Amino acid sequence: MAEKRRGRNSKDGVLIIIGGREDHVGDRVILKELARHVDDGRLVLATVASREPDGYRDKYQAAFSDIGLKEIIELYVDEREQAVDPEKVKLLDGVNAVFFSGGDQLRITSQIADTPISERVHEIFAGGGVIAGTSAGASVMSETMLVKGPNAASFRMGDLGTAPGLGLLPNVIIDQHFAERGRIGRLIGAVSQNPRVLGIGIDEDTAIVVEGHKFKVIGSGAVYLVDASGVSHSNIAEAAADQALSIYDLKLHVLSSGDGFDLETRRPVHLSEPEHRRSNA
Amino acid sequence: MAEKRRGRNSKDGVLIIIGGREDHVGDRVILKELARHVDDGRLVLATVASREPDGYRDKYQAAFSDIGLKEIIELYVDEREQAVDPEKVKLLDGVNAVFFSGGDQLRITSQIADTPISERVHEIFAGGGVIAGTSAGASVMSETMLVKGPNAASFRMGDLGTAPGLGLLPNVIIDQHFAERGRIGRLIGAVSQNPRVLGIGIDEDTAIVVEGHKFKVIGSGAVYLVDASGVSHSNIAEAAADQALSIYDLKLHVLSSGDGFDLETRRPVHLSEPEHRRSNA
Repeated sequence: MAEKRRGRNSKDGVLIIIGGREDHVGDRVILKELARHVDDGRLVLATVASREPDGYRDKYQAAFSDIGLKEIIELYVDEREQAVDPEKVKLLDGVNAVFFSGGDQLRITSQIADTPISERVHEIFAGGGVIAGTSAGASVMSETMLVKGPNAASFRMGDLGTAPGLGLLPNVIIDQHFAERGRIGRLIGAVSQNPRVLGIGIDEDTAIVVEGHKFKVIGSGAVYLVDASGVSHSNIAEAAADQALSIYDLKLHVLSSGDGFDLETRRPVHLSEPEHRRSNA
Repeated sequence: MAEKRRGRNSKDGVLIIIGGREDHVGDRVILKELARHVDDGRLVLATVASREPDGYRDKYQAAFSDIGLKEIIELYVDEREQAVDPEKVKLLDGVNAVFFSGGDQLRITSQIADTPISERVHEIFAGGGVIAGTSAGASVMSETMLVKGPNAASFRMGDLGTAPGLGLLPNVIIDQHFAERGRIGRLIGAVSQNPRVLGIGIDEDTAIVVEGHKFKVIGSGAVYLVDASGVSHSNIAEAAADQALSIYDLKLHVLSSGDGFDLETRRPVHLSEPEHRRSNA
């Protein structure tokens, strides 16, 4: 529990991590928040998670049309060899905002991790830019990401698949479409393997906006924080592959719009106070 | 948190509370446990939760056929007036075991609560008998039962419906088909209303066997204990009907076969030690 957690860089920018299916036609709270962080109106939409990205750009162009974005630049990489293509890499020149759309998180990491493109993404973030991701694009934010696990089922030992993510947010593991797909079981399974990792489950049309070691929740759903640091017993290392997980003394916070969270202290904070009191949060 | 919780009677019998879809053809761990508690081989199967109970008796007769039950007596009440019919009430004479099958929990309570039939059920339990229930039959065990709430969604203020249950197990609220239907959100919503009530979510083919103030877990899935007694903040009383719940500092235990729980201290206990050490559990 006292183990030192790897910190973030003080110049790091903003992460907007979305649980999928963010609103495109109503209040668009999440897309507006993203647009607000785009310096010059130019956003790179990285559709690499998808095998069929046709139409993604048009869809987002329409959704962002009247909320301050001038240009959406699509970055698609169909094969890994394209991730070193100077023409592709150049698409990221001078932008301060990248948005990873949904699909398969393993496509994102297998195509671009450890290439000039992911290097540029890290540079943009380290330079104070904004990196956003929805669905698969949310999962890749962490060092370790969930790639396989049951929906609507309790966790069994043999169920889980994880892989290294892009590593923009250390010491957490992120799951998306969270309540909608009944994923609490697999997130508990993931954090039980190593309680250093905080589980963050994000509902659809819901996002966390991370700045420094704090985040706030926006959107219509909830965010679940599963903290295993106080766990007193689990059978994760002992049980057979088809046995259900047993784990005692998890801490669980459910946050919604108006709540914030400190990733260092692992404490939620309620932000919905009058504007002048928010400055500390 | 220090509020005294209503206790149970020391002569009370056994409750077997099943999350639905218990195994009927394989190891039948749950049905065998139930059969073990039936003194004379006669079990009353109360199919009142169903609107179409045809075939239930045959189905259970087949499942119980070779595990020690001699007779399954079906008790069906189609209209509340039948619950005072002496012929119906007589079906419960001399039996020590009643099993409520699935359907709609409101049918059970609206048809038989506060009638001679429910009176007999309570007498059987108070006399040391076994009362079992699966699915809807599980939900009715508590004083307050869930009758409406979202599946696979986070909890919103206006979502929940509860009603008085049969009250065999005080100070808890029970939900079933738990992981399978993504019900953690609604159970958290229920306990947030009054942290005196402990939330118990039971997966399919999984049961808790309650004796005195302790229970053990049997079956293939997991049991989730949601304890709100340490909650430091929630918006349950403040938020609008369509707002997502916010609640901090829930305690969550996930138990599986081999685990037990003390309802008085609200502590899990690991029972899978050598047989001679189990006597204290």
